[in-house]
Amino acid sequence: MLLDETPLFDPSLLHELDWSSCTVTFSPLISPSSPGEGLVLRPLCLADFNRGFFKVLSQLTKTGNVTPEQFAKKFEDMKMTGDYYVVVVEDTNLGEIVATATLITEHKFIHACAKRGRVEEVVVTDVCRGKQLGKLLVSTLTLLSKRLNCYKITLECAPKNVGFYQKFGYVAADDTYMQHRFFD
Amino acid sequence: MLLDETPLFDPSLLHELDWSSCTVTFSPLISPSSPGEGLVLRPLCLADFNRGFFKVLSQLTKTGNVTPEQFAKKFEDMKMTGDYYVVVVEDTNLGEIVATATLITEHKFIHACAKRGRVEEVVVTDVCRGKQLGKLLVSTLTLLSKRLNCYKITLECAPKNVGFYQKFGYVAADDTYMQHRFFD
Repeated sequence: MLLDETPLFDPSLLHELDWSSCTVTFSPLISPSSPGEGLVLRPLCLADFNRGFFKVLSQLTKTGNVTPEQFAKKFEDMKMTGDYYVVVVEDTNLGEIVATATLITEHKFIHACAKRGRVEEVVVTDVCRGKQLGKLLVSTLTLLSKRLNCYKITLECAPKNVGFYQKFGYVAADDTYMQHRFFD
Repeated sequence: MLLDETPLFDPSLLHELDWSSCTVTFSPLISPSSPGEGLVLRPLCLADFNRGFFKVLSQLTKTGNVTPEQFAKKFEDMKMTGDYYVVVVEDTNLGEIVATATLITEHKFIHACAKRGRVEEVVVTDVCRGKQLGKLLVSTLTLLSKRLNCYKITLECAPKNVGFYQKFGYVAADDTYMQHRFFD
């Protein structure tokens, strides 16, 4: 089957962000348009299936065995809604995905029929740590959620990462996060 | 504009749940098909705009001023995705909504392209407390998420409600829930 380069969402959304309003500092300076030597930050595309996208996700949690057809079906489901912003960083020398993060916009009736953002699946591969890619991805998605008029953006993280997310303006909420798991 | 009775999702999903696998006890016994004298549990429909749906939501948080057109637009956006299960309880004598809760299914690539459920906007009006409607709504949405093949279902709640949600199989997670608010 054809796994082409069609992006999950409009790439210009990433390059038109107001990067000057970013609340964290980068040293050296990087941005969505210049994520570092040999790297490109862009929306997920179908061809990323063959660039190790699932290998990156597997550093976060279980991914199972996914066929190209299953991947393409899920990609199309996400694309159809217009609410899924899966961003990847590709090492263009290797032709491999080295980091990813997802913003989902959730529709609400509350807050005058607003949207809420959710940050999910933030992963940077072991070999690419220290390149500020986690900071770059979270800054990018946080600014994107604001650009998309979300009234708030939320996430769940390990307690050890609370300090990291505070840099972007996130605050630990009083609410308790609860889950009920049916299968792995 | 025409605000008709077309449901947000297939009502049979609610009546075909395996209620015998429900982990909480009801006294007197109620169920999605028999939620209590003079009450009906069903998917949200457009006509609920004129049955006080927003008045119920306003007991939870800010709702702002929403026009029928804005409501219908958001309803259609949600319906189009097939991922929004907004359930309401109507008092058929008054023709008013007295409770509501929402299940959202979120698409994932992880866990073999699974879906995850999220419980949102659980509200029972003041005058209808003590009728087990909160329990009924949460049981219904939890069973529905399982029926829809979600690998897990999650929610955020006030610490005082942790015990309530534990009855349905939810467990307080180690993760910290964080938020970044742009406007109210």
